[in-house]
Amino acid sequence: MVAERQKILASVDTDFPRWYQDVLEKAELADNGPVRGTMVIRPYAYAVWERMQSEVDARIKATGAENVYLPLFIPQSYLEREAEHVEGFSPELAVVTHAGGKELTEPVVVRPTSETLFGELMAKWIQSHRDLPMLLNQWANVVRWEMRPRLFLRTSEFLWQEGHTAHATREDAAEYATRIHLEVYKDFLENVLAIPVLPGFKTPSERFAGATNTMTCEAMMGDGKALQMATSHELGQNFATAFDITYTDAQGKVQTTWTTSWGSSTRMMGGLIMSHGDDFGLRIPPRIAPHQVVVIAVKDDDRTVDAAKQIVADLSTAGVRTKLDVRIAPGFGRRATEWELKGVPVRLEVGPRDLDAAQVTYARRDTDGKSPLPLADLVTTIPVLLDRMQEDMLASARTRLAERTTHVSTIDEAREAAKTGFAVIDWVVLGEAGEKELNRDAITVRCLQTRDGRMPDPLNPEQDLVAIVGRAY
Amino acid sequence: MVAERQKILASVDTDFPRWYQDVLEKAELADNGPVRGTMVIRPYAYAVWERMQSEVDARIKATGAENVYLPLFIPQSYLEREAEHVEGFSPELAVVTHAGGKELTEPVVVRPTSETLFGELMAKWIQSHRDLPMLLNQWANVVRWEMRPRLFLRTSEFLWQEGHTAHATREDAAEYATRIHLEVYKDFLENVLAIPVLPGFKTPSERFAGATNTMTCEAMMGDGKALQMATSHELGQNFATAFDITYTDAQGKVQTTWTTSWGSSTRMMGGLIMSHGDDFGLRIPPRIAPHQVVVIAVKDDDRTVDAAKQIVADLSTAGVRTKLDVRIAPGFGRRATEWELKGVPVRLEVGPRDLDAAQVTYARRDTDGKSPLPLADLVTTIPVLLDRMQEDMLASARTRLAERTTHVSTIDEAREAAKTGFAVIDWVVLGEAGEKELNRDAITVRCLQTRDGRMPDPLNPEQDLVAIVGRAY
Repeated sequence: MVAERQKILASVDTDFPRWYQDVLEKAELADNGPVRGTMVIRPYAYAVWERMQSEVDARIKATGAENVYLPLFIPQSYLEREAEHVEGFSPELAVVTHAGGKELTEPVVVRPTSETLFGELMAKWIQSHRDLPMLLNQWANVVRWEMRPRLFLRTSEFLWQEGHTAHATREDAAEYATRIHLEVYKDFLENVLAIPVLPGFKTPSERFAGATNTMTCEAMMGDGKALQMATSHELGQNFATAFDITYTDAQGKVQTTWTTSWGSSTRMMGGLIMSHGDDFGLRIPPRIAPHQVVVIAVKDDDRTVDAAKQIVADLSTAGVRTKLDVRIAPGFGRRATEWELKGVPVRLEVGPRDLDAAQVTYARRDTDGKSPLPLADLVTTIPVLLDRMQEDMLASARTRLAERTTHVSTIDEAREAAKTGFAVIDWVVLGEAGEKELNRDAITVRCLQTRDGRMPDPLNPEQDLVAIVGRAY
Repeated sequence: MVAERQKILASVDTDFPRWYQDVLEKAELADNGPVRGTMVIRPYAYAVWERMQSEVDARIKATGAENVYLPLFIPQSYLEREAEHVEGFSPELAVVTHAGGKELTEPVVVRPTSETLFGELMAKWIQSHRDLPMLLNQWANVVRWEMRPRLFLRTSEFLWQEGHTAHATREDAAEYATRIHLEVYKDFLENVLAIPVLPGFKTPSERFAGATNTMTCEAMMGDGKALQMATSHELGQNFATAFDITYTDAQGKVQTTWTTSWGSSTRMMGGLIMSHGDDFGLRIPPRIAPHQVVVIAVKDDDRTVDAAKQIVADLSTAGVRTKLDVRIAPGFGRRATEWELKGVPVRLEVGPRDLDAAQVTYARRDTDGKSPLPLADLVTTIPVLLDRMQEDMLASARTRLAERTTHVSTIDEAREAAKTGFAVIDWVVLGEAGEKELNRDAITVRCLQTRDGRMPDPLNPEQDLVAIVGRAY
């Protein structure tokens, strides 16, 4: 069986980039679109994305933010407010020059973000201190022309949410950005995607342009490289000053707001795949899995099929997302391999012999081996099993992160450790000069953290920080 | 009070177009975007749209369809497969000519629909009869350059879902398109939006290009004009032939599939506003309302505010979407007017005198007048009240539809009736010649129905049909 499986995918250990491409194709997750750098998200991957959206959206709304929808098209003049776009078309922009059957007087840009529109609108919508904080979020597609596209990780068009908020004080802005970072992103990534993340600050050189502070959640992929999963920015009064986002305070005085922005994208799909996948395909944590359990009828006789259907009905009633597979054409082995590829957490195999013994056979995707399970216990056992798998997958990802993270005290040691994972080095030891030196070898500071692995307090940053260093996607 | 209110909005009866613009602005639903014809959907309207999406999506999924996401950009050559696009840029298309900092070798079009991409992909994904039916849907933004934009009704960019399916037989395709039309669109529009619709077929001249049959759900707005709320198309084998969507049948023979497509959009927001709105603003049916109940503290003393908070907590626990309004600044009257404008179904006013009597005052948005309601009964009374309002709003819209629909027997009578509403006329009497004659006066056949108001059976259309005739948005 192992031999047969290994024909399907490249190996995680020996050719991770190839393995990633193989999984995308064989598990029917995504295809290249006809325009270079664009992506077709196929039903199975889109179902995962819908669950991501729903989980992240609920957390965003719990912080009090509301969703809006702003236009895809932005007048070119809006982007010219930002100095770096003044000289002609920025390479990342897609520009519409013709519409309505003729050439446009002013070209319009397909949004690379909606930042400038949020700026214009918040300036208009915010008048009084009573309008603050203004907490807005948008789910949308954005376009950044990509020279080296890679599905889910870097595509010319991607799906994301971008939040933009305005506050009366720096304290309120910092507190809110921190809340988004920890209660939305970190909580979702760890407790739903089972991906442990290192929350921290970006160094000044890695900061988002215009931000006074960029918070990041960094995760380690299966090959030891880092993936930035989400970022939140304190923009100070820079953005508010540029867009004139002011308010009249209780004393009638005009004040400038403090703003934040924060985002997460379909890149998280890439992170999910690369965090948990193994040589046999995806492994999807139960809380995000479109199908938590697949019930496979081993034979197509009425008794087996009816029993399989009954199990699906019982588990669905118990709140388990359950998929029925009673296909006749592909043999049982091929179907089992397919669900393994797709990373469905639990496979239940229903066959005549098992039914004679009033049991089914179950296989956990995250560990090897099959075991019998009495039919009578299914509805009570499976939900408990799914919870345990969720915990186990997070624990196992934490173990990998710990095993591949080395505490070092010199730049040379950091460079060595970054070959296979992360290095932790005192920020006073590394410094911006050391950071630049590592950059030459494509090694970056992923984030700065407190010595005990927490995100620094933006209002009272400790000086005693460590740098997490590694290669990154 | 009435005098004060009438200053806010134009009147439904005397200036409906102006009233519509006023409502969009005063109820903070939408703004024009900076690029002509684009739209900013503000939080309150977007919250309604999110509920629309969720309700429609659940119904689509219940029919077995899966969601995908296809790229925003389409190579121009894809559209040239369709004859009408061959000659240069079609006026409705927005074309990206520059990206990546330079001029593109082949311009790319911003999707006006994803039809051609679905065609290409289904041709690739469908191989065997076992892949059928293939039932796909997409939620996305699309762009059709609009010369006479009108927020929600006709905008250069809008949000929609488009479904595309392929089937082995014409029967299966027709049955599925009918199911989408009745179980998804009609059910949602009537039972959630409380908008009665006339399901029927488009006449050959009103049919979607390439369709063998177009099904529509037509609704009557507050001014007696029609709005097409959703359409479903049987595409026969036309589309499958153009895109080579074929399959190998059980006998190993290559066959051409039968396809359908169907869509609904943010236009439904326009329909919701124009169906139920009155001189005081929106009226949102409880099932789609972001806030079903708003609890207004009349004074800002602790006792009143605490009581209001307790009511919100109790109703929320009972599953009622409840909004708390304890703002101090705007006076009570202004706040009441604001919630009325926003069409929140039930307003609960909590004040010291009411609390002394262990009651609150409630106002239904759909009818006039206020009544006291004992605090002890709130949690049991409100859900029942919301259900009744939902029914009443549908019934009242049905009454208007019936009152403004006239059965006529000549084209002149049809023309007269269409001034204020719909005319029903035998299709054999009207005919395509009569249809053309009415078109000259901007009157169209909205749909063809059976004599008892049902949608004809696409597989066995009765000859004895009536035409619903009216002016339309």
